[in-house]
Amino acid sequence: MKSINPDISRSKSSLPNLDGFKAGIEKGDKTMLAKAITLVESTRTANFDTRRKLLEWASQSPKKPSYRIGITGVPGAGKSTLIEVLGLELIEKGHKVAVLAIDPSSQKTHGSILGDKTRMVELGKEQRAFIRPSAAGKTLGGVTAKTREAVVLCEAAGFDIILIETVGVGQSEISVKQMVDFFLLVLVAGAGDELQGIKRGIVEMADLILINKADGENIKSANASKVEYNRAIGLFPTPPSGVKPRVATCSALTLQGIDNVWKFIFDYFQKVQNNNFFDVNRKNQAVDWMKESLNNQLLEAFYHNQKIKAELNKLLESVRKGHLHPIAAANKLIDHFKVM
Amino acid sequence: MKSINPDISRSKSSLPNLDGFKAGIEKGDKTMLAKAITLVESTRTANFDTRRKLLEWASQSPKKPSYRIGITGVPGAGKSTLIEVLGLELIEKGHKVAVLAIDPSSQKTHGSILGDKTRMVELGKEQRAFIRPSAAGKTLGGVTAKTREAVVLCEAAGFDIILIETVGVGQSEISVKQMVDFFLLVLVAGAGDELQGIKRGIVEMADLILINKADGENIKSANASKVEYNRAIGLFPTPPSGVKPRVATCSALTLQGIDNVWKFIFDYFQKVQNNNFFDVNRKNQAVDWMKESLNNQLLEAFYHNQKIKAELNKLLESVRKGHLHPIAAANKLIDHFKVM
Repeated sequence: MKSINPDISRSKSSLPNLDGFKAGIEKGDKTMLAKAITLVESTRTANFDTRRKLLEWASQSPKKPSYRIGITGVPGAGKSTLIEVLGLELIEKGHKVAVLAIDPSSQKTHGSILGDKTRMVELGKEQRAFIRPSAAGKTLGGVTAKTREAVVLCEAAGFDIILIETVGVGQSEISVKQMVDFFLLVLVAGAGDELQGIKRGIVEMADLILINKADGENIKSANASKVEYNRAIGLFPTPPSGVKPRVATCSALTLQGIDNVWKFIFDYFQKVQNNNFFDVNRKNQAVDWMKESLNNQLLEAFYHNQKIKAELNKLLESVRKGHLHPIAAANKLIDHFKVM
Repeated sequence: MKSINPDISRSKSSLPNLDGFKAGIEKGDKTMLAKAITLVESTRTANFDTRRKLLEWASQSPKKPSYRIGITGVPGAGKSTLIEVLGLELIEKGHKVAVLAIDPSSQKTHGSILGDKTRMVELGKEQRAFIRPSAAGKTLGGVTAKTREAVVLCEAAGFDIILIETVGVGQSEISVKQMVDFFLLVLVAGAGDELQGIKRGIVEMADLILINKADGENIKSANASKVEYNRAIGLFPTPPSGVKPRVATCSALTLQGIDNVWKFIFDYFQKVQNNNFFDVNRKNQAVDWMKESLNNQLLEAFYHNQKIKAELNKLLESVRKGHLHPIAAANKLIDHFKVM
């Protein structure tokens, strides 16, 4: 995926126009989808308008009902193997599966999460699967804005199961929770919470706690963990979904318990569709999304304005030299801003 | 301090005008300073212009050279007692000391940090001291924007030592590091890092690690901690300041080691003023500050516009009802934005 980036940013010729993007995405062309996500992730001024129109089109294009599922857990919890196994099972059931992996370190490591080409090899071969690292990096909007936009594009391309993977130790989990319908926490048998660096707050967000690697010598400790987590969960208040979280063991290696995972997830979806939480939650998320999108677009439009750019550079120079106080400099620029 | 807030937001009469603020701050009137910080923290549209002009004036008013010092450590590390002792010592030396306490939980607890009136009683009585909880809350700009603005106002009122206190376990420490000249980490004798919830990243930011409560039975373990931290620090790369961090023990109770604290801090300031890092660091911080101030002002100006407010509410309603996609809604609003 990474090789697409330089193409788009260096030569205009390789960048499809808006209609090209629409046509490609509509027929589920994965190369076009990948290029569209790259476009949306880019911050080049020249692309601003296409980006905006493409997203607006994608957000309004008719789609199959989709399920958005967040999957988190520390490195080594076996998330990738699990996603591969679960993804293949869904494809067999007739779904189209998109996996968006958020790597908070991607700025530095150029996407180390998926840099390892051996991950999800089998799933990657499937026509009905799409795997993509989502550049979190230090974009204006951070993790959520760009990931949400990638979700919209995947859904417009006909993907109806969206798996959003994070390396579960920080802020990005909270962001992800706010954009998914279901939150899956993957833990490893036998390791205590503290060892796994999972905060209580993240455990509380989970709709399903999956204790992975419950195979061989680990089975006993996996079952012990299950008892322990069940006890802990019993003390949590019922979540807004009205559905108590579940705890289960599985092994992505021996496939023990794997067939139950989707059963649990789809059982959850049935419950929250019946009690209307699915819909209420999506609508609440839409409101947050709009606010976030507005903030990002506002800042983007401002900073990509040629006049602002030129003046900003001059003012930054004055601030850097100590000739102008930062507040005074900001005030000078803000005067160019008008609401029509 | 909290009682000022309702006054300002409810009745216009209690709010001084711009000239009133300037005159009061110029002569170091602490009540006026407190009101000015409240004004700056408020997000009322009506105050937008006064706020802006006041900050611009404060940022450009002639001031004594100041030292900005961040102080962090978990609850129970004895930060308040330490700040009181250190503050009183500085006042004796002829300084004017402002203490800004950032309470990340202030939104919920209405400023629990300083809600306890027994904190810093002696320092609070001093004419040359100013103590103020800084509302972090969920303002548009978060911790840094408002705290930076409070710093500017304190400096304009003649305070030349600014102590910024945080409850050291999260994101706000990184923000504070980015606005101070010196970063002091307060730990307790005998408790391991993990017990104190202090992340390695925060330890690495410290210019001085102070092991407090080194009194009575704790003296031995405080000394052991000192050895341990000195060893850890030996492995860190030299920080950008060019000055290796130090580790010291002290007791705010018996005053053991307290006289060394300012000696260490002023020794640091001498070194970084000689090697020019003090100046370089302030200028880099000014650039960040300008960008941050610009973002905040832009969002504030946009959302406080009457036309935007009205339309935003209508669009949010459509999004909430599912009639409009969040991206499409954001696009509609962004069209009102113009750069002149």
